[in-house]
Amino acid sequence: MKKTALIMAGGRGERFWPKSRKMLPKQFLSLTNDEKTMLQLTVERILPLVDMEDIYIVTNNYYKSLVLEQLPDLPNQNILCEPIGRNTAPCIGLGAVHVASKYEDALMIVLPSDHLIKSNELFMQTLSDACLVAMEDSNLVTIGITPNYPETGYGYIKINPSKKKRQAFCVEQFTEKPDYKTAQQYLESGRHFWNSGMFIWKVSSILYNMSTFLPDTYDGLMKIKDSIGSPKEFRVLEDIFPGFTSESIDYGIMEKADNIYILPGNFGWDDVGSWLAIERIKGTDGEKNTISGNTIAINTHNCIIEASDKLIAAVGIEDMIIVDTADATLICPKNKSGDIKKILEHLKKENNTKYL
Amino acid sequence: MKKTALIMAGGRGERFWPKSRKMLPKQFLSLTNDEKTMLQLTVERILPLVDMEDIYIVTNNYYKSLVLEQLPDLPNQNILCEPIGRNTAPCIGLGAVHVASKYEDALMIVLPSDHLIKSNELFMQTLSDACLVAMEDSNLVTIGITPNYPETGYGYIKINPSKKKRQAFCVEQFTEKPDYKTAQQYLESGRHFWNSGMFIWKVSSILYNMSTFLPDTYDGLMKIKDSIGSPKEFRVLEDIFPGFTSESIDYGIMEKADNIYILPGNFGWDDVGSWLAIERIKGTDGEKNTISGNTIAINTHNCIIEASDKLIAAVGIEDMIIVDTADATLICPKNKSGDIKKILEHLKKENNTKYL
Repeated sequence: MKKTALIMAGGRGERFWPKSRKMLPKQFLSLTNDEKTMLQLTVERILPLVDMEDIYIVTNNYYKSLVLEQLPDLPNQNILCEPIGRNTAPCIGLGAVHVASKYEDALMIVLPSDHLIKSNELFMQTLSDACLVAMEDSNLVTIGITPNYPETGYGYIKINPSKKKRQAFCVEQFTEKPDYKTAQQYLESGRHFWNSGMFIWKVSSILYNMSTFLPDTYDGLMKIKDSIGSPKEFRVLEDIFPGFTSESIDYGIMEKADNIYILPGNFGWDDVGSWLAIERIKGTDGEKNTISGNTIAINTHNCIIEASDKLIAAVGIEDMIIVDTADATLICPKNKSGDIKKILEHLKKENNTKYL
Repeated sequence: MKKTALIMAGGRGERFWPKSRKMLPKQFLSLTNDEKTMLQLTVERILPLVDMEDIYIVTNNYYKSLVLEQLPDLPNQNILCEPIGRNTAPCIGLGAVHVASKYEDALMIVLPSDHLIKSNELFMQTLSDACLVAMEDSNLVTIGITPNYPETGYGYIKINPSKKKRQAFCVEQFTEKPDYKTAQQYLESGRHFWNSGMFIWKVSSILYNMSTFLPDTYDGLMKIKDSIGSPKEFRVLEDIFPGFTSESIDYGIMEKADNIYILPGNFGWDDVGSWLAIERIKGTDGEKNTISGNTIAINTHNCIIEASDKLIAAVGIEDMIIVDTADATLICPKNKSGDIKKILEHLKKENNTKYL
C-alpha cells in the first residue's frame, strides 16, 4: 500500500528563545545538527520509506515561506496551511483529506517536525513494522518510546503485554503527565511508554474514527476534501477550519477508539524540549560543558554555551545556559530554564515585538 | 604661585575588559558618567584651579590620538608621551621638567586620570589647602583618603597626629597593602589613610628630591629639559627615557624624603578598580542590581549588567557581572572578578589580539 507522511510543522516553540522566534520556531532551526534544520532532518529521515511527492507538511501561512525555502524539492501543493491552530486532530484531519483526495486509500505516517532520532535505520524498521500492523483492519498505531528515566514532562501510554499483534502491543490506557513517584513506578513497571506523538494508520482508518468520535470535524473535513483542487479550495478552508473544535488526536481519538496498538521505539529519541536537551544530544566536554561558537570558558563547568560570532567570555560560572544571537543574549541558570517564557511574557507586555 | 597639573594617563587597565581594551584603557572610557570619560572628568574637575594651558597629560604614543580626541582644547605640546612605561617616578619627572622649562617655579598637582571624585567642591578645597602647605619650604604633600572599610587592596599612609602643618599631618610611614586583620587595625586607629596617588608640590621641591634620591634619573631629566622646544627634543626623549630605572614615586621619593605631609581627603573618592566599583558608584535598584543598556532582568538580584544595544535577557541569576560590547560579552560571578585577567592571558596565549 502507498505510504504517505504528514509532518506537523506549525508549532510555535518558545523554549528555545532567543534562537527560536515567533517567525522562526524550533522546527526551522539547526539545533541538533550544524547544517540541517529539524524539519529538513525529519523529511530526510522518512525519504527511504516515502516519496517526496507523498510528504505533506501542515503548517500555517506565517511559516509557509520557511518551508518552501528549507524544502525546495517538496511540491508546493503539499504544504498545507492551517488558517488557525486547532490542535492535532483537525491538523491531522486536514492532512488525511489531502491524502484521501489523491489516493483511494494509503498509509499515513504522522510525525512531529521537531524531534531528534539517533538511529534512522532502527526508526525505519519500527515504522515498517508499524505499517504492517496499520494495514490490518482499521488499526491505529502509535510509537511509544521506552523510558530510561522517570520523566514527569511527558504523557505515558500503558500497554497490555499479553495482547500483541506482530511487534505491537495493545494499548490499555493513555495517561497524563505523572508526578515523580508515579513516573518512577511507570519506569519500573516496564508497561509504560512515552507518548511520542507519532502515528501510523490508513487514511480510511483515521477518517472512519473521526466520523465516529469527532463527527462535526469529520463533516467539515469532507467539505474541505470536496474543494481540493478547485478554485474555491482556499476559501472553503478559511471558512470551515476555524470552526473546528480545538482537540488533540490523543484525547479526541486515541483514548476512545478500539484497535489502538503501540510499537516500542528504541531508536534513540529526544523531543528536544528545552535548552537542557542540547547537552544530552551534543554531549559534554571534559569540563562537562556543551559549547559551540566563539567562546572562551575559564573555570567554567556544567554549562551550555551557544555563541555565534561575538566572543562569549565566561569565567568561573557553573550550571548556566548562555545563548547568544545577533540581537539578544540569554543568561539563565539551568534550573531556571522553565522561566525563559517569562522573558517572552515581559516582551509581550511591553509590546517589544522585535525580540519575540 | 602659578598652579599646574600633571595627569597620568598611560595606564593599561585590564580589569574593565571587555569595555577596556589595550588600545582603549579605562581612563578613556565613560564608566562613571554617561557622557564624559574619566580623563575628561579629571581635566574638567581641575579647571577651576589650573588653566587649560597649564595642564599636562603624560601618556604614550599609542594613546596620544585618544587624548587629542577627548581633550580638543588642550595644547598639543602639553601631551607628553613616554617612549616606554617606567612607573611613576620617571613619569612625574618628565612632567616636572616640562613645567620647569615653562616657569621658573610653579606648583604641580599630580593626579591619576582614572579615579572618581564625588564632590568637586570639597576636592578643590583640599587641593587649595594642599597648595598652601606645598608652597612652604620644599614640602611634598599627598592626599590621603579617610578609609571607611578595611580594604586590603590599597597601600596605607600612617600619620603622626601630633605633628600638623595647617590642615596637613606629618607622614610617619608608607605601608604596603595590608592583610585583612591589619587593615581592620588601620581602620580603627584613625591614623591610617589610603594612598590616593595624588601629590602636590613645587617643581623645585620634587626636582630637588629627585636629585637627592634618584640622581641618575635626575641627570637624564635635565638632559631632556635642555632639549625641550628644540628640534632634537623627540630624539633625546627616545634616547634617555628608556634608560631610566623603573621606580614608583612612593618608593623612590616619598618613603625616603623628609617634609612629607598628608591632607585627609573626604571628598568621596573611588579608584574604580574593577567592575565591582560600578555598583558602589552608580548605586543599585530595588532588586540590588546595577543595570544599564538594553536589558530584561527577571528574578535577578545583586547583579551588575552593562548592556549596549543588544538585548541582554537575564533570568534567575544572582551575584553576576555581565558586560556586553560590540564584539565580546563577559559573564563572570562577582566573587571571581579577579579572574577576568585570565581571559586576557588566554587571548594573549592564543595570539587572539582582536579582543585584547
